[in-house]
Amino acid sequence: MNFRDLHQQVKQHTDDSLLNLIDLLPEHAPRLKMAMQHALLAGGKRMRPLLVHLVGNTLDIPRSDQLTISMAIECIHAYSLVHDDLPAMDNDDLRRGKPTCHIAFDEATAILAGDALQTLAFTILADHPMSSCGNSKRAQLISILAKAAGYLGMCGGQAIDLASTGKTISLTELTRLHQLKTGALLCACVEMITLVSDSLAPQHREQLIEYARLIGLAFQVQDDILDVEGDATQIGKPQGSDIELGKNTFPQLLGMAPAKQELANLHAQALQALHTLPYNTDYLAAFTDLMVKRDH
Amino acid sequence: MNFRDLHQQVKQHTDDSLLNLIDLLPEHAPRLKMAMQHALLAGGKRMRPLLVHLVGNTLDIPRSDQLTISMAIECIHAYSLVHDDLPAMDNDDLRRGKPTCHIAFDEATAILAGDALQTLAFTILADHPMSSCGNSKRAQLISILAKAAGYLGMCGGQAIDLASTGKTISLTELTRLHQLKTGALLCACVEMITLVSDSLAPQHREQLIEYARLIGLAFQVQDDILDVEGDATQIGKPQGSDIELGKNTFPQLLGMAPAKQELANLHAQALQALHTLPYNTDYLAAFTDLMVKRDH
Repeated sequence: MNFRDLHQQVKQHTDDSLLNLIDLLPEHAPRLKMAMQHALLAGGKRMRPLLVHLVGNTLDIPRSDQLTISMAIECIHAYSLVHDDLPAMDNDDLRRGKPTCHIAFDEATAILAGDALQTLAFTILADHPMSSCGNSKRAQLISILAKAAGYLGMCGGQAIDLASTGKTISLTELTRLHQLKTGALLCACVEMITLVSDSLAPQHREQLIEYARLIGLAFQVQDDILDVEGDATQIGKPQGSDIELGKNTFPQLLGMAPAKQELANLHAQALQALHTLPYNTDYLAAFTDLMVKRDH
Repeated sequence: MNFRDLHQQVKQHTDDSLLNLIDLLPEHAPRLKMAMQHALLAGGKRMRPLLVHLVGNTLDIPRSDQLTISMAIECIHAYSLVHDDLPAMDNDDLRRGKPTCHIAFDEATAILAGDALQTLAFTILADHPMSSCGNSKRAQLISILAKAAGYLGMCGGQAIDLASTGKTISLTELTRLHQLKTGALLCACVEMITLVSDSLAPQHREQLIEYARLIGLAFQVQDDILDVEGDATQIGKPQGSDIELGKNTFPQLLGMAPAKQELANLHAQALQALHTLPYNTDYLAAFTDLMVKRDH
């Protein structure tokens, strides 16, 4: 199967599984249920499930276990977008061309939908059948995801982002901000799916996690470059909107040419991390390109 | 030790443990860290940790394991209060006489603090050493807490509360609302601490959970009665504020005398549930009185 078809298939499986998950909830709070579904199925590209799937397939992890991990991660990702879009945070009315959760519903429902999606992530990891992993590993999966989502990861990164908006921070601080805000969850994809493998050598696990760290950072550098040079209709937000909001960006701190050089370095390092693994990593190389060379 | 001193001791241990937990977080997002501490240590009565402790002691569960469970529950409880107080929800400026989190900090920080506290609850259950419980039971503890906190519990109840404010609902619906919004977490206290016991008979476990369900509901009926008859300075909010907000209450649906009779029935049933257990339940009986006969 070519990479594009594989991505489409993973997206479809993830969408179907998440829709099914929400369908199974009882009807006692229909508006909240609809808001959770809206948030989960608002047309995301499912990059994280794709990464879980590619690493999972490489390690012969059963498809159903890949999906369990992907669904939990997508619940955390979706909740974070709902809360980040709130008026008190980034105050965004649109995401991927559709009304954000608090616009489609209301602010109270959006707060609750985010809250309930976060909880749902942990329910999935605690409850869903997993054929390749006993109860003892479930707690570790939950530990990894919670660390990536909470103060030590995403929430901490978002707080640093809020605190540093309108101020100039150092390159080290900007890198740390992105490592926490978006990098931690991407690393968690790899940490989780590799945890359930019984055959992976520890040093190869470390290399895959390092790969995730590198592409996470590369993704963000590319995001910042697109904010300056991208086509507004492609990237879905006005050009220069990050800088206008007073966000720190890599091109701003480094200059555009050095930022592009940094992106190229990260890309090369990520491919290098794959290169030394004793697996066929062609799909992962294609994933790297998708993350780094995108135009939106 | 008399019951009042025991309660004070549990409160002190819980406060100290939570403060220590926050202290141990790194400093990368100091404002978020302070907001989490503010939310966790805003003078709660620690009724849930007290219930965990009383049942845990009855079943000889080690004190450190009781504390692990209590801390996780208090993180969920604290996060729910922070989000419930937000302007888009109940819009409360004060809680227990102190500024609420979004007043003491700001709305974005309060949303994030709630989010990070929810995550922290699951980190605690996944990571903290537990002497009486292996990894296999951790996933079950997490499952119980997540069920009580999410769409099937607290979040679902809060959504029903929002949807039914300003409308008259049936007694069955009001009971269900409270069972989800506040009852589920109280039941989870008992479900969790009894799960780690190896000696408790299943029917006695069910009885203890039923006891928690009964006192949870009794607590809410009493809350509604206090809203009409309580001393505003004692209950910490203006008399009649629930009715003014268009909230459904038991006295309003049943009449005051039948509501008081219902409270007495629930109280008697709760004591009856304790009575048939083969344990000394004197402290739990005192706890029942504390929950049901309070004046604030």
